Amino acid sequence: MKPVISRQVILANRPIGVPQASDFSINEKVLGAPGPGELLLRTIYLSLDPYMRGRMNAVASYAPYVQTGEVMVGGTVSIVEASNSPSFSIGDFVLGHTGWQSHVLHDGTGLRKLDPRQAPISTALGVLGMPGLTAYAGLLDIGQPKQSDTVVVSAATGAVGGVVGQLARISGCRVVGIAGAKEKCSYAVEELGYHACVSHHSPDLKNQLAEACPDGVDVYFENVGGIVFDAVFDYLNVGARMTVCGMISHYNETARSPEPDRLPRIMRAILTRRLKIQGIIVFDYAHREPDFLADVSKWIRNGELRYREDIVDGLDNAVSAFQGLFTGNNFGKLLIRVSDDPTRE
Amino acid sequence: MKPVISRQVILANRPIGVPQASDFSINEKVLGAPGPGELLLRTIYLSLDPYMRGRMNAVASYAPYVQTGEVMVGGTVSIVEASNSPSFSIGDFVLGHTGWQSHVLHDGTGLRKLDPRQAPISTALGVLGMPGLTAYAGLLDIGQPKQSDTVVVSAATGAVGGVVGQLARISGCRVVGIAGAKEKCSYAVEELGYHACVSHHSPDLKNQLAEACPDGVDVYFENVGGIVFDAVFDYLNVGARMTVCGMISHYNETARSPEPDRLPRIMRAILTRRLKIQGIIVFDYAHREPDFLADVSKWIRNGELRYREDIVDGLDNAVSAFQGLFTGNNFGKLLIRVSDDPTRE
Repeated sequence: MKPVISRQVILANRPIGVPQASDFSINEKVLGAPGPGELLLRTIYLSLDPYMRGRMNAVASYAPYVQTGEVMVGGTVSIVEASNSPSFSIGDFVLGHTGWQSHVLHDGTGLRKLDPRQAPISTALGVLGMPGLTAYAGLLDIGQPKQSDTVVVSAATGAVGGVVGQLARISGCRVVGIAGAKEKCSYAVEELGYHACVSHHSPDLKNQLAEACPDGVDVYFENVGGIVFDAVFDYLNVGARMTVCGMISHYNETARSPEPDRLPRIMRAILTRRLKIQGIIVFDYAHREPDFLADVSKWIRNGELRYREDIVDGLDNAVSAFQGLFTGNNFGKLLIRVSDDPTRE
Repeated sequence: MKPVISRQVILANRPIGVPQASDFSINEKVLGAPGPGELLLRTIYLSLDPYMRGRMNAVASYAPYVQTGEVMVGGTVSIVEASNSPSFSIGDFVLGHTGWQSHVLHDGTGLRKLDPRQAPISTALGVLGMPGLTAYAGLLDIGQPKQSDTVVVSAATGAVGGVVGQLARISGCRVVGIAGAKEKCSYAVEELGYHACVSHHSPDLKNQLAEACPDGVDVYFENVGGIVFDAVFDYLNVGARMTVCGMISHYNETARSPEPDRLPRIMRAILTRRLKIQGIIVFDYAHREPDFLADVSKWIRNGELRYREDIVDGLDNAVSAFQGLFTGNNFGKLLIRVSDDPTRE
């Protein structure tokens, strides 16, 4: 067997603000033959997700950060190209967390086999994967929407938000999205079934929200923070639930201009309006995966739930594609196609 | 029957900062004879509670504010002195919400009869009343303490906090109090069974908390806000629950010096540590009253749960006693004895 060269994206410097190409370097690593029990994996899809921005900072969080000089972490769908393990055969598709690289030697721990006849293998990184489960548990378990509740979703067409909005619609709620570009707002309403969608670029965001939510807001699914949070917060009803899933507007902040401290006002509102504000990290909801997969697969099959993928070819485009997550340039679940997907023509 | 004169404390001006005597006036109102179905009530105990500060502001909240020129609102225990109602007899003790006044004509709506053989009638305003139910629902329903959790309670010896700490101890938790005066801290440990209690006057509060909570904090019952919140927040564990019951340190604030906006940091922590922060207003938990009364009465009878009352004589002392709630001068459930309690010698 010819030696395999893995192309790797290495975190070279800790980014300040939006990550730049110069914060990364490309490395080519020669892989040996798989050892006893080992597999050689070729990456087909790499998932790009906002949480990765946090991993680039040397700040303790819910998962370890990436050391400079290391391969960037990330979820992947790969194909087994060689196997010394009885559990995996050549040609198997597997979901893993092998990062921003084209090939890897792997001992098989934590890999999940994917059946391409059940669903497109890329969906294991999106609607049927981590973002989908985040949406499912964050809306249903934390948000606890009741029939006729008004549910507001920021980043309404994103990998998580797009699923949240549709689950809320399926739950019988009035669903209002917040997105950036006009075409995203149209897509939210026309394709995903939101009852309304307003743009956070509008200087009139607060009034538009008020119009779209005549009965106030019972559930707010927060992906954005910043001015979007400020706009929604005042409309939260007594007893409203807010799922804190992300705050993408803050992830690249380097310094903040001194502003009045909003915390006392927010805490007072939490008290007087009996709000519940709760964070979600998907790792805590592994026990919900069977229900999630059964429900969402069914809704995809019967057409009640749609998804959109934003597939960018080539690992060398990963950094510029990742930047697009923060500028609003990407539209749908962002994936890098690192190598050919043999299940698609 | 001689005409009865009701002595009333009227909100004369909206207080700025800590309410002053000059913000109130005393009125004497001549009451007529009770009409058909009406009762004449003589107030025995008036409850003084921090929430009343909010009622003095012309700011919409979970309950209407008091108009200037009106009698201040408040919970009371009264005795029936005359009755044209078949439901009440002279000499009955009733729990009501008749406010800062010595006598009132009442149609009986919403009054609850009290049996002085079951418990001292004053406890209906404290450990067996609204503060007790707040503690019970706020700790058990929102905080959901598990055996061996660490529970931190601010205003640890207050009308609510004192019950919270003891319920947490009964639930098998490690219980750490935060109070002001040294004697309150000693009382928390020696009488209420807190495992430790630290003073928020200590410049070393954060380190003392760290020492008292070696395994971090799983439940924080918030009555205070301000520097106490800041001190506890960083120790909240992954998955911790915070019940927002009060923020007494803010209630008299008139303006706040510009400070960095803490909200983004707090929201980030809510996300990464999957915190749940939820407000409580006791009105929402009427359905828990039967369990609450059964449990807490039992624990009082068997000595597991203690309470302390801070009884001040005379309606004319209500304003100065109320000020003590904010300066830390009061110690235990604060009550005004408006007139003689015939059940006590």
